[in-house]
Amino acid sequence: MRAGFQIVEGGLDGVLGIFAGGIRCGIKNKRRDLAVIYSRVPAWAAGVFTQNQIQAAPVTVTRNNLQKTKKLQLVVVNSGVANACTGKKGLEDAERMAELGAQIFDLPQKELVGVASTGVIGEFLPMDKIEQGLLNLRNGFPEQFFAHDAALAIMTTDTVPKEHACQFSIGGQEVHLAGIAKGSGMIRPNMATMLSFLACDAEIESASLERALKIATQQSFNRITVDGDTSTNDMVLILANGQSGAHPIKESDSEFSTFQKALNWLTGELARDIVRDGEGATKFVKVVVKGGKNEEEARKCAYTIAESPLVKTACFGEDPNWGRIVAAAGRSGAKFDPNALSVIVNGVSFVEKGMGARGCSRQEMKAVMREKEIEVVVNLGVGEQGFEVWTCDLSFDYVKINSHYS
Amino acid sequence: MRAGFQIVEGGLDGVLGIFAGGIRCGIKNKRRDLAVIYSRVPAWAAGVFTQNQIQAAPVTVTRNNLQKTKKLQLVVVNSGVANACTGKKGLEDAERMAELGAQIFDLPQKELVGVASTGVIGEFLPMDKIEQGLLNLRNGFPEQFFAHDAALAIMTTDTVPKEHACQFSIGGQEVHLAGIAKGSGMIRPNMATMLSFLACDAEIESASLERALKIATQQSFNRITVDGDTSTNDMVLILANGQSGAHPIKESDSEFSTFQKALNWLTGELARDIVRDGEGATKFVKVVVKGGKNEEEARKCAYTIAESPLVKTACFGEDPNWGRIVAAAGRSGAKFDPNALSVIVNGVSFVEKGMGARGCSRQEMKAVMREKEIEVVVNLGVGEQGFEVWTCDLSFDYVKINSHYS
Repeated sequence: MRAGFQIVEGGLDGVLGIFAGGIRCGIKNKRRDLAVIYSRVPAWAAGVFTQNQIQAAPVTVTRNNLQKTKKLQLVVVNSGVANACTGKKGLEDAERMAELGAQIFDLPQKELVGVASTGVIGEFLPMDKIEQGLLNLRNGFPEQFFAHDAALAIMTTDTVPKEHACQFSIGGQEVHLAGIAKGSGMIRPNMATMLSFLACDAEIESASLERALKIATQQSFNRITVDGDTSTNDMVLILANGQSGAHPIKESDSEFSTFQKALNWLTGELARDIVRDGEGATKFVKVVVKGGKNEEEARKCAYTIAESPLVKTACFGEDPNWGRIVAAAGRSGAKFDPNALSVIVNGVSFVEKGMGARGCSRQEMKAVMREKEIEVVVNLGVGEQGFEVWTCDLSFDYVKINSHYS
Repeated sequence: MRAGFQIVEGGLDGVLGIFAGGIRCGIKNKRRDLAVIYSRVPAWAAGVFTQNQIQAAPVTVTRNNLQKTKKLQLVVVNSGVANACTGKKGLEDAERMAELGAQIFDLPQKELVGVASTGVIGEFLPMDKIEQGLLNLRNGFPEQFFAHDAALAIMTTDTVPKEHACQFSIGGQEVHLAGIAKGSGMIRPNMATMLSFLACDAEIESASLERALKIATQQSFNRITVDGDTSTNDMVLILANGQSGAHPIKESDSEFSTFQKALNWLTGELARDIVRDGEGATKFVKVVVKGGKNEEEARKCAYTIAESPLVKTACFGEDPNWGRIVAAAGRSGAKFDPNALSVIVNGVSFVEKGMGARGCSRQEMKAVMREKEIEVVVNLGVGEQGFEVWTCDLSFDYVKINSHYS
């Protein structure tokens, strides 16, 4: 029990009235590539979408559908092909994917379907395979529906599926909140940086859901970075179907703040999973900037450090080369006093007053760099504002994975 | 003969009254690590310096000296230790390095000495080794002075020395302009991104020299990027000692524009050398953005593409994954029409009207990606402004070199 909610095992399967499944429809070789998330009833829904100026067709279609209905009953997701930069035909395909979902799962209208795609940019969706895949999924519904399969089917270069769940109580009634996510490369802040699908069996109206999702995203998916690259396809969707039977909650209710906390936790866990599974990652790196003049400068500084290839390769090499951290801070545009700057790594002082910390042996510094999780705390020493970013190291495998992808 | 100047073999040795040499003083193992560039007479001089908020001690000392005298007669450079983040003692050491240079080379004042350092941040200079090294250099002066040794002595992770030279005529008198540079990692725009030392035997007064150097830097060192990281130590210095005997030139003279063109060429060659020798680089990549609303947006777009780890690993893998180029443009903040965007790589159309170009086979696309020099032309289609950036690919060797440096 933390802050009124309880972490539980499992994933979306525990959310009442939610059924998620995944199969292989043949876009990818020998791997699951098509998932659906179905709600027994139309659910209040909200989404956040990529901020990239180029937005893939499914992003456009899902955003439009959500605007019309404020609800979703089905989400159809494929991996392998992104359906981005595919022009008019791409939009028609994304619309058709929603239509097929509505037909095959007997929904009253196609606008209750969200669609998402992830994979290579510039190729068209194989619509016949997607149609046959949806029919096969429908045939297995609900006996063959396992949310874990959905988590697997949305993966691209991910090495592990990402699922988390929790529960809390509304007026004595137990409610469930869970989600899945994918994302490993092309991870960048300032938007829904990957695919994530969340569901809750409480009843929360769309506008409140959206505000809560934005707050949660801001402190989770929007503060992770693997390589600074932002995808054209990313989205986070949340459904709240009310199937727990608990009374509907509003933002003014005390239960809403429990929901917000649970949602913050859930998105935080999924976001950290993404960074831990960053392409080629061997370490989780948390960059905490403190003492900034304002939050914007602290943010710039944190991202500049977190995205510096030199800092990231030093983490991979377990090399306590703090000069790279200091140099990145220096070029970030954040104001600081070079003679007051401090850097602390996993509790060990590397830099004091802008110089190598005395009383810290190279042995000690090397030892902390060998840990699996590295926390870099940089104090700019000119104010009170801070920002925290999560990233991973840059390894041989990042280059290997990305030099031969398409 | 191009634009009034002539490219010639060799380097600084051809500049009259300039003597450059390099030896091993013992900072590094088995490699040259100390260089001097000496002018027979005090020379008009100018410099551009790192924009990093953290500036190494030698940057401060050299800038101060230049401000006082507008002239330099000696430049002392060491590699292996950067003398950055070294506080008061670091400043004293840099001052002492200038003093030793002036003493040992019999200069009238220590402010005629520029000092520069490159290497690991946070360590102190071994002043005894530098003193002994300077004495040894003085003993070999001028018989053992070879500018090529100076080019070698300023290298860190560079794999090749970088030297270029040209000549042109002032009032019928032949004058010489040449330079050396180093830089391989921590290369980033918007400042003097590495060390470079240029010399000319024409006579050009300091203020004019500085303006010319700024123009040249803007279109050479300021548009290269290897990894987006900016060093604390970078500087470009130019000396003009008048030893050719040609009459002094002013900015209003027609010869000055020849000098400017020659200087642009020289800095451009040195900058391109740095990118070609980028840490782990296997390819030279030129990113040309056209059709931007304004230059600032074109610049942002060009850098975002040039610094995208996904674009750079695709170049390394010779993978025509244009989706990454388009996605980088999309997140760069530059305005464009997603349905008008085009991408042309080495003359082959990859993207037309925001979609994969028809009539271009995957075979053809793969073939151009296999070339050693890759030119990516992105047309944003919303205006007339452009920007060009030079970079390299991101390879296994970049990670190898940088994970075990200090």
